Amino acid sequence: MAPILTNSSEVNASERSDNEENGTVHVKNPHLASMPEDVLYHFDLGTKTHNLQAMFGDVKFVCVGGSANRMRGFAEFMYTELGLTGDGSDIRDICAGTDRYSMYKTGPVLSINHGMGVPSISIMLHELIKLLHHAKCRDVTIIRLGTSGGIGLDPGTVVITGTAVNSFLQPQFDQVVLGKVITRSTELDKDLAQELLNCGREIGSYLTIIGNTMCTHDFYEGQGRLDGALCSFSNEEKLDYLKKAYRAGVRNIEMESTVFAAMCHRCDLKAAIVCVTLLNRFDGDQITSPHEVLLEYQRRPQKIVSMFIKKQLGLLK
Amino acid sequence: MAPILTNSSEVNASERSDNEENGTVHVKNPHLASMPEDVLYHFDLGTKTHNLQAMFGDVKFVCVGGSANRMRGFAEFMYTELGLTGDGSDIRDICAGTDRYSMYKTGPVLSINHGMGVPSISIMLHELIKLLHHAKCRDVTIIRLGTSGGIGLDPGTVVITGTAVNSFLQPQFDQVVLGKVITRSTELDKDLAQELLNCGREIGSYLTIIGNTMCTHDFYEGQGRLDGALCSFSNEEKLDYLKKAYRAGVRNIEMESTVFAAMCHRCDLKAAIVCVTLLNRFDGDQITSPHEVLLEYQRRPQKIVSMFIKKQLGLLK
Repeated sequence: MAPILTNSSEVNASERSDNEENGTVHVKNPHLASMPEDVLYHFDLGTKTHNLQAMFGDVKFVCVGGSANRMRGFAEFMYTELGLTGDGSDIRDICAGTDRYSMYKTGPVLSINHGMGVPSISIMLHELIKLLHHAKCRDVTIIRLGTSGGIGLDPGTVVITGTAVNSFLQPQFDQVVLGKVITRSTELDKDLAQELLNCGREIGSYLTIIGNTMCTHDFYEGQGRLDGALCSFSNEEKLDYLKKAYRAGVRNIEMESTVFAAMCHRCDLKAAIVCVTLLNRFDGDQITSPHEVLLEYQRRPQKIVSMFIKKQLGLLK
Repeated sequence: MAPILTNSSEVNASERSDNEENGTVHVKNPHLASMPEDVLYHFDLGTKTHNLQAMFGDVKFVCVGGSANRMRGFAEFMYTELGLTGDGSDIRDICAGTDRYSMYKTGPVLSINHGMGVPSISIMLHELIKLLHHAKCRDVTIIRLGTSGGIGLDPGTVVITGTAVNSFLQPQFDQVVLGKVITRSTELDKDLAQELLNCGREIGSYLTIIGNTMCTHDFYEGQGRLDGALCSFSNEEKLDYLKKAYRAGVRNIEMESTVFAAMCHRCDLKAAIVCVTLLNRFDGDQITSPHEVLLEYQRRPQKIVSMFIKKQLGLLK
């Protein structure tokens, strides 16, 4: 079997400039155009069964997060924030035919959950990017609103990702394709991160910073926790690892940022990651804050993103 | 930072023989015993807030699968199969306080969903293994009931995993711990696989086989699909990859088997994987069978596992 791709640079300059001209969402798959039908299996949607352009053509902002309940809550919040009329009863799960993901649309804002970990969000992103492409959406901004473990930060701090790095502190995502490793850039939109930071500072009732985000494939051993079913290292070794990450500019750890950044970058989607920290990992591993405190923390990224969206729509100055 | 573990053999022989003697579920973490409390965050359970031994002490079979709806359906099915009295209204989600996972208990059978992909199931397994340990469960058998893409098999075939292999066709799981790669065995219980195969053959209304299972971290590019948002290979290259896997004994592809096998093996849990195939990947990539057909396919592993459990409990000869 011949190697498929061995270089790390896949960006086709002409594709990119085409896209920048008309602002549509581009898939990077030559086979897709010749498919008579595209079943978005994990959304329970499809090009023959649904009029995707009518359903989603006006989407300008896609907001994603791990928990379905949280993303439903965000959709309800945006419904109010955007001053949409009605009682909100039309906020229904568009993916109700499956329990793999939940999806809600409030005006130009699409809210979707992606579960936990790189593989789970990658399935969602493949189908989302195809959906935006089929629906001929233009000038879409995509933001992940997540939870994370902080490093050297008070719990409740909001971290906007500067660079997403892997467990080896490298700013890259390794994708296995047909048994070969392809390395992709995890570059995010710097201007978008700055605009979101400005919103956080304007709100001002909690600390918002830009920092690097480490993405791991495991919550326990992979993040240096001492409280998993398996643990083979000491507290000192754990702290050494976290300090090394801190010195590399990492301020929070979660489980989706690298593939999110890599796929959005590859498909020319303007993307950002806004996560609240639920604990300071220098102080411990367990998440023991009261439920109400954690809920309030989780609303912090939502308030920042809501302000950003309202500014973009001209609803705020 | 010193390397933490560089060898691939972590099994402590004395630990294993201790465990085999009394049949309890062993965590492999020396720190856990000194923790005053253990919050199983993603289950919304904990050692101080719940009497885990009273709630779970009698569990003998743990059945896991990706979809929450499917695992609820399995719990309802087992309720009937085990002839439990009552109207089944006590089948409630034990993890109702969180939407990360759902958990149902019917007699000695615990059913839990794990989402999609290695990171998602690994979080669940860490907390499940700790739960079984805290609850002092004995002689537990754990079975994953899943869906998969088949290779060279008619859709609807049930594959019991002989060996779980990674995308490079290696029978191992690579776990990153503190920035170092630890390689773990994906060995599964051969006798258990054979007993499940016998149940499948006894049912006889669909084909059940033992074959190797490939675990990938991506559903589209990672499994050689031509229909993702990204695709950089040809149909011929895809088929070469699938044929190479077939020659290595792989009969189905899913996204959780290697870490499931590795963690259960490391914690001395008797484990098996029983997945139905939803399509034959030699014939295509999209899952286009009608909803009712797919639902019937998904009940096939459940029937096999139910027969196995009933035999173990002496309810069937």
